[in-house]
Amino acid sequence: GFPGHMGMKGQKGESSYVYRSAFSVGLTERAPHPNVPIRFNKIFYNEQNHYDSSTGKFLCSISGTYFFAYHLTVYMTDVKVSLYKKDKAVIFTYDQFQENNVDQASGSVLLHLSSGDEVWLQVYGEGSNNGVYADNINDSTFMGFLLYPDMDDH
Amino acid sequence: GFPGHMGMKGQKGESSYVYRSAFSVGLTERAPHPNVPIRFNKIFYNEQNHYDSSTGKFLCSISGTYFFAYHLTVYMTDVKVSLYKKDKAVIFTYDQFQENNVDQASGSVLLHLSSGDEVWLQVYGEGSNNGVYADNINDSTFMGFLLYPDMDDH
Amino acid sequence: GFPGHMGMKGQKGESSYVYRSAFSVGLTERAPHPNVPIRFNKIFYNEQNHYDSSTGKFLCSISGTYFFAYHLTVYMTDVKVSLYKKDKAVIFTYDQFQENNVDQASGSVLLHLSSGDEVWLQVYGEGSNNGVYADNINDSTFMGFLLYPDMDDH
Ligand SMILES: [Ca+2]
Ligand SMILES: [Ca+2]
Ligand SMILES: [Ca+2]
Repeated sequence: GFPGHMGMKGQKGESSYVYRSAFSVGLTERAPHPNVPIRFNKIFYNEQNHYDSSTGKFLCSISGTYFFAYHLTVYMTDVKVSLYKKDKAVIFTYDQFQENNVDQASGSVLLHLSSGDEVWLQVYGEGSNNGVYADNINDSTFMGFLLYPDMDDH
Repeated sequence: GFPGHMGMKGQKGESSYVYRSAFSVGLTERAPHPNVPIRFNKIFYNEQNHYDSSTGKFLCSISGTYFFAYHLTVYMTDVKVSLYKKDKAVIFTYDQFQENNVDQASGSVLLHLSSGDEVWLQVYGEGSNNGVYADNINDSTFMGFLLYPDMDDH
Repeated sequence: GFPGHMGMKGQKGESSYVYRSAFSVGLTERAPHPNVPIRFNKIFYNEQNHYDSSTGKFLCSISGTYFFAYHLTVYMTDVKVSLYKKDKAVIFTYDQFQENNVDQASGSVLLHLSSGDEVWLQVYGEGSNNGVYADNINDSTFMGFLLYPDMDDH
């Protein structure tokens, strides 16, 4: 008899579009508490909900290389914050305040994260350097995004 | 009869290479005007020409999630700028100037944009906080890039 | 006859997975030397080893558009640094120091690089503006990553 019909077309190849993770958040008020993650409640972007504003932590769901950045308004007292990865302070940013001289302090870093790793910002030390300020027309912000997902996940 | 021929090979997976949008620009002189977008005329990168230095505005051509950042030299007077999206101030950066103490102020944010949305930097308020400075060996810069194009556009 | 077998799965979409280049580094001590690249010895990320901490230079291996950023602690004296591309100062960041007023200065830029191009940070001028500071709980950092590889390389 006749040959059968041609087989179905193969599946589409993989795309990078499914590997996404990003957040961008801001403080709504001053005076972050010492010894706990700073909780950013103003949400600019958090589509995947990997940032939890109730805890202040970003939770890695996709292993890979991530970019993180923060920009802090320094007002009333000095600022010293660390970006923490899994309970370890990775980078430190220190800016002293002088009267009538509000400042801006910022930091950024690339880190490899495994699924389950948490990253957050926290006032470093005993809490005296907690001059991170924000109100409705002054921002202090934190963000992160997945730059390169791990190859072995594909 | 014989089985039919094997089906055609599947389509190639999607590539992100066609979805590109990025700019990186700087000021050439001080004293941006109040109430209008700051016009950055020094071009570090603008391959897709989505930033228009005659208006100071970035025009989104590809819907998706964008990263924006700016770094400002604070000199002669205080600085207060906002990043605007569609006539709304999204984030605010304030840095006070004191004599003999040039400062640097910066901000960054992730925003979802739809095609046609405009983004720019502008001195906030009535123009007294316009101490953004630049000359041939001092920079004040603005940049942005498409991080993740919208999935439904593919 | 029977229909043929299903076609083979399509090729994986051209993904950016093979085109990766990123580094994130920090200073371990103060007092960078003038007239030579600042050598960052604390490695946060350098998987592809495109940053050489013995020379302080990033060497481009994949032509494309790159993001660079730096964040500097300003202490003891003023800071003026430039980001260099191929022996040319591309952007300048200046921040003055005043007693008891540690500051933070930062910059970022997008640049198109060709394979073989080198990028680094250097104190600008004769070395008097070398107040870039770091110790084990204060950071000054530098980073970069490939944003968009050149299309014609694929
Ligand atoms: Ca200031
Ligand atoms: Ca200063
Ligand atoms: Ca300060």
